[in-house]
Amino acid sequence: MGEALDVLFAHLPKLGREEVPLDRALGRVLAADVTSAIDVPHFVKASMDGYAVAASDTFGAKDSGPISLHVADVVTPGERGVESVGGGRCVEISTGAAIPRGANAVVMVENTDPADDDVLVRRPVSPGENTIGVGSDISEGNQVLSAGTVLEPRHLGVLAAIGSRSAQVFVKPRVALFSTGPELIAGDSALTEGKIFDINSFTLGAALISDGCDVNRLGLVADDLVTLIAVLRSALAESDLVILSGGSSLGRGDLVAEAFTAMGSLLIHGVAVKPGKPLAVGVASIDQGPERVMIGLPGYPMSALSDYYVFVRPYLKRAMQVTSIDRFVGATLSRKHPSAIGRYEFLPVKLQGRKAVPIGKGSSSITALSEADGFIEIDENVEVLEAGASVSVRLF
Amino acid sequence: MGEALDVLFAHLPKLGREEVPLDRALGRVLAADVTSAIDVPHFVKASMDGYAVAASDTFGAKDSGPISLHVADVVTPGERGVESVGGGRCVEISTGAAIPRGANAVVMVENTDPADDDVLVRRPVSPGENTIGVGSDISEGNQVLSAGTVLEPRHLGVLAAIGSRSAQVFVKPRVALFSTGPELIAGDSALTEGKIFDINSFTLGAALISDGCDVNRLGLVADDLVTLIAVLRSALAESDLVILSGGSSLGRGDLVAEAFTAMGSLLIHGVAVKPGKPLAVGVASIDQGPERVMIGLPGYPMSALSDYYVFVRPYLKRAMQVTSIDRFVGATLSRKHPSAIGRYEFLPVKLQGRKAVPIGKGSSSITALSEADGFIEIDENVEVLEAGASVSVRLF
Repeated sequence: MGEALDVLFAHLPKLGREEVPLDRALGRVLAADVTSAIDVPHFVKASMDGYAVAASDTFGAKDSGPISLHVADVVTPGERGVESVGGGRCVEISTGAAIPRGANAVVMVENTDPADDDVLVRRPVSPGENTIGVGSDISEGNQVLSAGTVLEPRHLGVLAAIGSRSAQVFVKPRVALFSTGPELIAGDSALTEGKIFDINSFTLGAALISDGCDVNRLGLVADDLVTLIAVLRSALAESDLVILSGGSSLGRGDLVAEAFTAMGSLLIHGVAVKPGKPLAVGVASIDQGPERVMIGLPGYPMSALSDYYVFVRPYLKRAMQVTSIDRFVGATLSRKHPSAIGRYEFLPVKLQGRKAVPIGKGSSSITALSEADGFIEIDENVEVLEAGASVSVRLF
Repeated sequence: MGEALDVLFAHLPKLGREEVPLDRALGRVLAADVTSAIDVPHFVKASMDGYAVAASDTFGAKDSGPISLHVADVVTPGERGVESVGGGRCVEISTGAAIPRGANAVVMVENTDPADDDVLVRRPVSPGENTIGVGSDISEGNQVLSAGTVLEPRHLGVLAAIGSRSAQVFVKPRVALFSTGPELIAGDSALTEGKIFDINSFTLGAALISDGCDVNRLGLVADDLVTLIAVLRSALAESDLVILSGGSSLGRGDLVAEAFTAMGSLLIHGVAVKPGKPLAVGVASIDQGPERVMIGLPGYPMSALSDYYVFVRPYLKRAMQVTSIDRFVGATLSRKHPSAIGRYEFLPVKLQGRKAVPIGKGSSSITALSEADGFIEIDENVEVLEAGASVSVRLF
């Protein structure tokens, strides 16, 4: 399984970069580190409501002997203080407002009493007290975000804070997607004996969109070699990656492997995972263009989606340099689960409190995954997981 | 904090419903339970490659005395078997193919030997063996998904499996969003002393989109009462919800509360949470229209976003009947954290292995959330969390 990922990682698509406005950057992946050109805050500000003072003017103040300062001005957030402070003069100030010239601290309003145009200060403050320094949150020249960050609301906040109007992100990988298999029909066809509705176009298409791809949906493609090669050729010419499912039925031979071999080379043909064994990966170059990857997933819907999570998602994340952590939840296994030596297993589970309950349905089930909250990955050298074992559930 | 949520939940917007095609339904919220009109599978199929037989034809078969059956046909997935089975006749079959008439079991190819047009069966099978029954995954008339499901790839697979071409979902809540505060400037303005860039339009806008809303971005609105009321009126007339941030500065009084009161009624004014105390909620009806909710969030970016996660997200989920679980990770607190009795606290933390490390930055920090992986919610009756305490980290 690790070997298959290594093969995939050796053939990553080269993605372009583009600038997108911040209000359309959610979920996109940063293509370059971001450095701030400004200090945040870029002026000293009050962290409390009160009076901006020269700290030395307050030394010695106490309840029994308050120090009287003249209130020369009032400054609120967004304003520039006009009057300067010091020598017995202070300025009334609100949280977030800029500290006026001459001031280096704020006396909290709670430690003062008003007295006409003056204020009585009952506690001394030290220089810097109740202020937020220039660059205390972000310093000019410092890196604030790194390439590979999937932009979430909080990251967009950092970009907005430093005055960015756009973000440089990777162009979305263009992925062509289709399903093949003589048993498949589209959702608008009548269901006849032996036929089933195409499921993988919807599950895989949505998973690709979730993971930041631009999906070209080709629907159902007939499973003969000539058609398969023709569709793969035209899809590869205009995509970074082609993903198909089906076409690896044992009873009919493996058309997908044949097609990949005919077009270029077959790099992977079968992996030791359960479910999802019939994975095929090939590369081909169309009209002297760049070498591009084709991935053939199993036809069974659960196997196709589990191979997607185990192989395709990590491949796409690597191509976009995504560094974000996967979502894991620690749990204990609700019952004993036998696995098989020499085969990696993808086990869908439902979370019930701190318990992970395996979904006891075979890989032909379509509902198994919809009932699951995530999956456990069972290493190839594990023969059995005992009831009560600590497991990490990887959330979908 | 619970009381504030109860007040919000008592004023949910009424959302319409619409049908969207499956390939555009990712992330949308089901507005009705979904029941299957078909059995899945809707025919008995082979779960192994081998020979479809009448089980009784194989009784007594053994290595030392195999039973010979005539192979009348070959059936692969998607085909309808033409020949019938029984009375010494069988049909070669591939995994996933429909079991032909007369057959009720499949002998695995491993338990047979070919013999010209016949096959020698070395093991008996019982009725149903190596087959998948009609409706074994989904039964006609059974509910497969419930209202409130946020459609992920695996749910779309279930809809595709039962032949749905579209899903009935809630119309996205229309949310008008703006920021107010004299200290704010847009990202395309020059930064002058006392001013800061508007951050909340981007963080809150993106969070609303993530949570399935249709966002009308109104940008910056001047913080005087007349302007505020005029903007709120026009925004409320065409939205299900209006969200603004800022305008609750202590130094300048609370314009937002004044505006909400002037327009209708002020339901919440301040909550016992840290950060995020200056939350305001009001309701108003424009031109005898339906009563609609206005939410005023704090101006500080971290407080605005934490109040979003604590109040607005649960409100929106309730409005869309969303039942999906939140993402929690169990961890141990890396160091002692004092809290305050009588106040719910939202504490951002970074995950390092199984440790949750509090981000030690104040609520004025913009970077605190971008460095966090999630947050711990500290109940109002908790005074201190000790180092090593078990905590649940709610992922963003």
